[in-house]
Amino acid sequence: MFTNKRTIRIEWGDCDPAGIVYFPRFFEFFNDATTALFEAVGLPKREMLSKYNIAGFAAVDVRGRFLKPLTFGDDCEIESSIRKWGRTSFDVEHRLTKHGELAVEGFETRVWVGRDPDNPHGLKAQVIPKDLIERFEKQ
Amino acid sequence: MFTNKRTIRIEWGDCDPAGIVYFPRFFEFFNDATTALFEAVGLPKREMLSKYNIAGFAAVDVRGRFLKPLTFGDDCEIESSIRKWGRTSFDVEHRLTKHGELAVEGFETRVWVGRDPDNPHGLKAQVIPKDLIERFEKQ
Amino acid sequence: MFTNKRTIRIEWGDCDPAGIVYFPRFFEFFNDATTALFEAVGLPKREMLSKYNIAGFAAVDVRGRFLKPLTFGDDCEIESSIRKWGRTSFDVEHRLTKHGELAVEGFETRVWVGRDPDNPHGLKAQVIPKDLIERFEKQ
Amino acid sequence: MFTNKRTIRIEWGDCDPAGIVYFPRFFEFFNDATTALFEAVGLPKREMLSKYNIAGFAAVDVRGRFLKPLTFGDDCEIESSIRKWGRTSFDVEHRLTKHGELAVEGFETRVWVGRDPDNPHGLKAQVIPKDLIERFEKQ
Repeated sequence: MFTNKRTIRIEWGDCDPAGIVYFPRFFEFFNDATTALFEAVGLPKREMLSKYNIAGFAAVDVRGRFLKPLTFGDDCEIESSIRKWGRTSFDVEHRLTKHGELAVEGFETRVWVGRDPDNPHGLKAQVIPKDLIERFEKQ
Repeated sequence: MFTNKRTIRIEWGDCDPAGIVYFPRFFEFFNDATTALFEAVGLPKREMLSKYNIAGFAAVDVRGRFLKPLTFGDDCEIESSIRKWGRTSFDVEHRLTKHGELAVEGFETRVWVGRDPDNPHGLKAQVIPKDLIERFEKQ
Repeated sequence: MFTNKRTIRIEWGDCDPAGIVYFPRFFEFFNDATTALFEAVGLPKREMLSKYNIAGFAAVDVRGRFLKPLTFGDDCEIESSIRKWGRTSFDVEHRLTKHGELAVEGFETRVWVGRDPDNPHGLKAQVIPKDLIERFEKQ
Repeated sequence: MFTNKRTIRIEWGDCDPAGIVYFPRFFEFFNDATTALFEAVGLPKREMLSKYNIAGFAAVDVRGRFLKPLTFGDDCEIESSIRKWGRTSFDVEHRLTKHGELAVEGFETRVWVGRDPDNPHGLKAQVIPKDLIERFEKQ
């Protein structure tokens, strides 16, 4: 299973009056990490959207477990991998660590979506292309 | 079970290039809704922190289910309630609807935390005061 | 000159570890207030974009003056007005007060933009429609 | 004059439904860049706050000029420098470029603030320590 690693720095503006990360930020970090995971197999988001003519990979179920508080100036590592491929959806798992210790876990179920031809503002699930899954399996 | 209702407007800046809400925003909406839930029983956050001498109610496990995409200009309603009280933690549930239709569900497990006397940056779980729980039961 | 008023509540997540509003948030509040200003003259953003076939009113020059720190739980009022109309741009001014006292001033120069036919990712200034300006003058 | 350079990647969540960066994000990028500027002369924010016993460097006047729209996937460079030192305040300038072309300029006037002994939620300007200014001049 291919795992992508990236480092992030916790910034002042990520933290709340208790001095720790305001937890919705972790979902932003993880969303960026999912984008980076695809870029790591050769699919930067902008190219991916046009290559497959999709609107994106919409989050439908997302969970975070916050084990240790983090504060500004902390340098962390995020490891991300796709745990399961479905027909139109896939599961991503993120592990955010500081000095090797697990601080936050993230889980995302994402659906491969295109524009809905019957609804200008709507999105519609699409079958995930085989060659995309192969990019991850070949790593 | 006491339920608090509030309305929110989805703003331009809440949305991403697909034109729909960037999902981490929902966790911000729900965090504000939890704060509003306590204010609705007479405990605005600032007063609550000083009254009980706590650092806050830290999120330890959070989940969102995204059923329908929303876009800027949408007026939504959030219903929030505390589903379960533990000794040091409690579970909050949020239902975000548009025109009565469920769009997003949120689940939060929160821990009642004070400052850790042994660690200036640390937080420590504390027993939830009985009178606080009674405020919700009396509603 | 038409002035639109709205109230906002400063939330926990708007504040930084110093316990005061993280200043980029004010530019979000003011951006929402500019949107609300147009809605107040009958042009909700989504309808406005489709009615005039534009991409939006892009900020080109923005300034904030922060006179008094604000914290979570503060209830504020924002007064917004358009101070000057140009051919393709306009100037917006925002005054954010708490209990009648000025806390933050915002200034935005915005350009009325459409899609650039020569560049799929580009934007192009357009002449502001007369009937739009008249909506503000009639108030 | 010491100039610090850092690169940033524009992320999906930084962009709005027009597909370009939602402009308040630039003020977040610049705030982080000011923090990085001090870290570059040996003063990571956390250490700086405790070393000088201050609450931070509060923004009192901030301006952004947006010359070229940016979109997700863009890799940019930010150059930051302190243009002027006052007794209790200083001016920072940021230049954000993409492929060497100026896209956004940022200007910040910041005040060196401590806690106000007469007001638990207040901040008070303090004289900027000489040794701090010397750190920048020695570079």
